[in-house]
Amino acid sequence: MARPAGTGLLRKPDTTLPHRLERSARTEQGALHPTEDLLAWIEERNAAQLHDVRRIPFAELDKWRFDDATGDLGHASGKFFSIQGLRVHSDYGPVRTWTQPIINQPEIGILGILVREIDGVLHCLMQAKTEPGNVNGVQLSPTVQATRSNYTRVHEGNPVPYLEHFRDADAQHVLSDVLQSEQGSWFFRKRNRNMIVEVHGPVAEHEDFRWVTLGQLHRLLAVDNLVNMDSRTVLSCMPGGFEGAAEEPTGVSESLERSRDPLSGTLHTTAEVRSWITAQQSEHVVRTDLIPLNAVRRWRRGTHDIHHELGTFFNVVAVDVRSNSREVGGWTQPLLRPYGTGMVAVLVKRVDGVLHALMNARVEPGYLDVVELAPTVQCTPENYAGLGVEYRPPFLDLVLDRHPEQVLFDTELSEEGGRFHEARNRYQIIEVDADFPDADLPDYRWLTLHQLTELLKHSHYVNVQARSLIACLRGLR
Amino acid sequence: MARPAGTGLLRKPDTTLPHRLERSARTEQGALHPTEDLLAWIEERNAAQLHDVRRIPFAELDKWRFDDATGDLGHASGKFFSIQGLRVHSDYGPVRTWTQPIINQPEIGILGILVREIDGVLHCLMQAKTEPGNVNGVQLSPTVQATRSNYTRVHEGNPVPYLEHFRDADAQHVLSDVLQSEQGSWFFRKRNRNMIVEVHGPVAEHEDFRWVTLGQLHRLLAVDNLVNMDSRTVLSCMPGGFEGAAEEPTGVSESLERSRDPLSGTLHTTAEVRSWITAQQSEHVVRTDLIPLNAVRRWRRGTHDIHHELGTFFNVVAVDVRSNSREVGGWTQPLLRPYGTGMVAVLVKRVDGVLHALMNARVEPGYLDVVELAPTVQCTPENYAGLGVEYRPPFLDLVLDRHPEQVLFDTELSEEGGRFHEARNRYQIIEVDADFPDADLPDYRWLTLHQLTELLKHSHYVNVQARSLIACLRGLR
Repeated sequence: MARPAGTGLLRKPDTTLPHRLERSARTEQGALHPTEDLLAWIEERNAAQLHDVRRIPFAELDKWRFDDATGDLGHASGKFFSIQGLRVHSDYGPVRTWTQPIINQPEIGILGILVREIDGVLHCLMQAKTEPGNVNGVQLSPTVQATRSNYTRVHEGNPVPYLEHFRDADAQHVLSDVLQSEQGSWFFRKRNRNMIVEVHGPVAEHEDFRWVTLGQLHRLLAVDNLVNMDSRTVLSCMPGGFEGAAEEPTGVSESLERSRDPLSGTLHTTAEVRSWITAQQSEHVVRTDLIPLNAVRRWRRGTHDIHHELGTFFNVVAVDVRSNSREVGGWTQPLLRPYGTGMVAVLVKRVDGVLHALMNARVEPGYLDVVELAPTVQCTPENYAGLGVEYRPPFLDLVLDRHPEQVLFDTELSEEGGRFHEARNRYQIIEVDADFPDADLPDYRWLTLHQLTELLKHSHYVNVQARSLIACLRGLR
Repeated sequence: MARPAGTGLLRKPDTTLPHRLERSARTEQGALHPTEDLLAWIEERNAAQLHDVRRIPFAELDKWRFDDATGDLGHASGKFFSIQGLRVHSDYGPVRTWTQPIINQPEIGILGILVREIDGVLHCLMQAKTEPGNVNGVQLSPTVQATRSNYTRVHEGNPVPYLEHFRDADAQHVLSDVLQSEQGSWFFRKRNRNMIVEVHGPVAEHEDFRWVTLGQLHRLLAVDNLVNMDSRTVLSCMPGGFEGAAEEPTGVSESLERSRDPLSGTLHTTAEVRSWITAQQSEHVVRTDLIPLNAVRRWRRGTHDIHHELGTFFNVVAVDVRSNSREVGGWTQPLLRPYGTGMVAVLVKRVDGVLHALMNARVEPGYLDVVELAPTVQCTPENYAGLGVEYRPPFLDLVLDRHPEQVLFDTELSEEGGRFHEARNRYQIIEVDADFPDADLPDYRWLTLHQLTELLKHSHYVNVQARSLIACLRGLR
């Protein structure tokens, strides 16, 4: 049929983007800053960012107080976040009804990475940033990491650098922009806007910021507690097409390259994966209600913490922070301090040379919807010590008993240091044989990278732990 | 790179499906039952399905009662649904805080259409079904329309015919399976599973069921109050590729055919559309809390209804139903009875021959998330009579003042008769000039059919009124 004359208004997707991302993923030599210089710069920023964090009793919190009626712990402004109670009724798992403290932070913040082509290679503007809950001071953070309270200036600090690139982004330069959830056991329906925006003109590199290639980030992800959670989740939402990029291909990188390609085939078609997720959302009935913190049972409030009577799960603590590098020089705040080191692992296998990852449709009470896709294993093993075998998470023993040659990735990474106190997880990617059984369990399925990348264009499909592992998986060589 | 030997386990999407759907959309002659026979069958079923609906006072409700403490109206079993109160705080629109009655139905039901190739043409198994709130008795319904209470047999009626095809569907035969929301002003976070499942063996046609082609359904959608809401929402989730199918192409059908093709180009790329939706979700802060029905202000409970003191919006009423065709012979229940006839209209325009539809990112308090995409206009004009111009919905006057030659579709269709009493909406598709201005308003954007079809693969993007109009739009000739 004849096509009417063109107005020039119609647009097509940018097909050059996957190639540009792949070039960045291949580039470690030839980056603007050699990787050793980046590591030295992080050491230097760590020393420069005066950072003194001290546990204090709740009574010494400034502007934070427990509400007389509810016991909720909140800020005098009503902004930031509050610690409230949550009551959960579920038809899932061995424990079906419980109450717990939870962080309620209804505002949507921005986690943004600015990218720019430098000498023909895309670089990401990364920030050396201290958070009070970090295990080690400075970590590598996104360009912008701002709550709505931050950027509407509730605490009257300095403006957030580079924020204007995200607040006033030209739609045509936005590579990714999607709401994603955070820890559903600790946050009530929290989500942040994960943004990647490309700039075309020059942008100054402030002293806490450096332009870094995807290839460098993939190298740095393997360093313990260096690339922070916010960077990992934004990177996981990067459009696909660069996975498996390697100077010298390996079996793993080839299987990643096939796994990113929709034409390679999949164990389950994408329509089947969506139907499986729909069935899992429909299968479970989970009802959650915010309740007063003082109505939470089996948790005790002391002078220095709120803890479960068994000493498991997590505590709520208070800290005093002195820093010369933040928008304000010093402050106090509560933090959630998890118990033990978490184990976050995904099993992968190559089927006809196409890498598949075993995902778990997992119920967590703080999700907006019922389930999100989690890694194969996500737990704190100590919480299961002494409990019966019926409580044992599937595949946990397989991860604990792994052989060294199965381990493709094994790094301790920590969770958001602005809300969590030393929340450490050991992230692992473990390869199993191609004939490892297909899912017998209704809440587990093997997915390809292409399928995960498509789901990550939308909200509330893939949880934050899985997003961290996907960021790491994409960079394997 | 060399590909390892194949196991035969990897699968590819079914590329024949769009062609098979298109053949069905082209087929009106040559269908199993001529369209006139279908209309006669509906008349006949309407006479056969004894159906006597009578308004009764609340005091005559059987097994439904107002809770003494909360005033909530619920069923003795705790199942089905209840009428509760909702408190809304929003930063959006001229009225930002209010309370209202709302239907709470936390269970997820199944709306399913069974499809089958008959003589090489896909047919949908449609049901002639009476609902107590229907304006006219029998309407054309999906194969299965079952709440969880229905299929777990809470009211101990007959089993739901054909349900097993959806409950035990082989993943490979599921064409569509997605949770979709329903009216966000009347339901609290209600959603149903919209399923389309293909069967390959013979399936008996019970007397209330007929096999119908997509082409026939498109013809029947233009008949007032014939194709019910549940059919329309399931049809809107049909995989795309058949839009604009016509024996004799017209300008409109050609523009639909281009609009379904991702290669035709779009005013906004799909990445930009997602970013716009993310921005709209982030822009508004809406907090909703279920409250006791007797804490709702400005609504009055009488002996026969619950109504707003102005007489606007809707009433809650009670009915007594006698029927010989339902799972049980008779029952009583509450229904929500809206005030006036709604106006639901979408503006479309052809840009370089590619049809675009003007969608509105709309806040409704019952959505799981903050906004969903609605038609250009969705309101009950009477509710705005006597209010100032600042309350006037954008584009409403343009719809009211349309010229006849702009009208591509104009049919009265009614909403779910199992919950709503004579809820009528006038659905219209109105074409504007190609140079009609691109969106000046931040909450409106022009999208192609392909973009809408992609969003409809996922939950909570497109509201139920827009889904009805999309089902109609796809069938235009």
